[in-house]
Amino acid sequence: MRLRHKPWAKEEMENHPHIVMAAPEKSKGKWNSVFGNDNPIYVEVGTGKGQFLTGMGQAHPHINFIGIEKYDSVLITAMERVKEAELPNVKFLNEDVEELLAFFAEGEIARLFINFTDPWPKNRHEKRRLTYKTFLNKYEKILNKGGEIHFKTDNQGLFEYSLHSFSKYGMILNNVSLDLHKSGIEGNIMTEYEQKFHEKNMRIYRCEAEYREK
Amino acid sequence: MRLRHKPWAKEEMENHPHIVMAAPEKSKGKWNSVFGNDNPIYVEVGTGKGQFLTGMGQAHPHINFIGIEKYDSVLITAMERVKEAELPNVKFLNEDVEELLAFFAEGEIARLFINFTDPWPKNRHEKRRLTYKTFLNKYEKILNKGGEIHFKTDNQGLFEYSLHSFSKYGMILNNVSLDLHKSGIEGNIMTEYEQKFHEKNMRIYRCEAEYREK
Repeated sequence: MRLRHKPWAKEEMENHPHIVMAAPEKSKGKWNSVFGNDNPIYVEVGTGKGQFLTGMGQAHPHINFIGIEKYDSVLITAMERVKEAELPNVKFLNEDVEELLAFFAEGEIARLFINFTDPWPKNRHEKRRLTYKTFLNKYEKILNKGGEIHFKTDNQGLFEYSLHSFSKYGMILNNVSLDLHKSGIEGNIMTEYEQKFHEKNMRIYRCEAEYREK
Repeated sequence: MRLRHKPWAKEEMENHPHIVMAAPEKSKGKWNSVFGNDNPIYVEVGTGKGQFLTGMGQAHPHINFIGIEKYDSVLITAMERVKEAELPNVKFLNEDVEELLAFFAEGEIARLFINFTDPWPKNRHEKRRLTYKTFLNKYEKILNKGGEIHFKTDNQGLFEYSLHSFSKYGMILNNVSLDLHKSGIEGNIMTEYEQKFHEKNMRIYRCEAEYREK
């Protein structure tokens, strides 16, 4: 993710607290009240400029979406998109995914998206990958029964690693696609990266990872 | 696999009972005596014309290899290769993989190879795929503790399915490669199909699937 310093981003987000939630830890366990409905809540970790979540919010008005992104210089674009599209069902947290458990209660989330996350290719950075076991453990806690991770990436090495990590954690891999855009999938919403890579005719890898009942 | 009727194949194999084992059920639990050593035993299911197993037998003289192939018209080529190369550590069974448990005792095998097996792409043929759960259950019985399945295919659909099937069975996926010949792997022995597909610049998919301890 190319980052440009945008000193005004923080203030602009503070001016729209109904889109970029201030003090999200106060909403832990109460997200359905925040949205004002009982619809399921889907979370995207590392939401970037928000093209995916904005598209999902438009396509699925009866689902609530929360995107987490630690860089305000990209999240500001996501905020502007949601403001423009007037989507009451899409909100963002300008936070670090590491702290996920501070923001969501056990079983509060119905689905989790990981899209085109940083591959951290060096072995010594394995722990930073968002499909590393410590993250899988956090996701498991906030997902409800039957909750799944939906994962997309263009990065072959990250996908290979993640298949290992998911299976090692005991998860079941469903609907694996090793060439998403040739698989005849319907309703796929592209991220910024996905669109770029797709236009270059590069493969997109995708799978759904399901937690095993204990 | 293109099959040509070779009426002489059966007789020719019967003339070489030390390569293509007659009545293999009599050797169940006694394969190390058959080979005359205590080396580990690796099995390939659907061994075809035997290029892989002959290459493996030459590269690893201290491992015993057994290839299972139900079609005598292709297995005859495998037999001729082993005869030519004078490999005491490679033997074949002209049998159906379905009947695996008739030939091997519990924990008798150290590793199992599935290479370029028939993808059976129709859903209604799922049960025939050699990575279907009933087969995984048979393999698990004959593999010893820590025994693994090493799986290669050019078929994207079969690989996607198999990742699901392995993980659903509770297995751990190790060393996943979504483009084997660009992964810098060493010591890879190619099968007939693999060589052909590799020359056409097609991707080869590979993984190792490990059974979880009970």
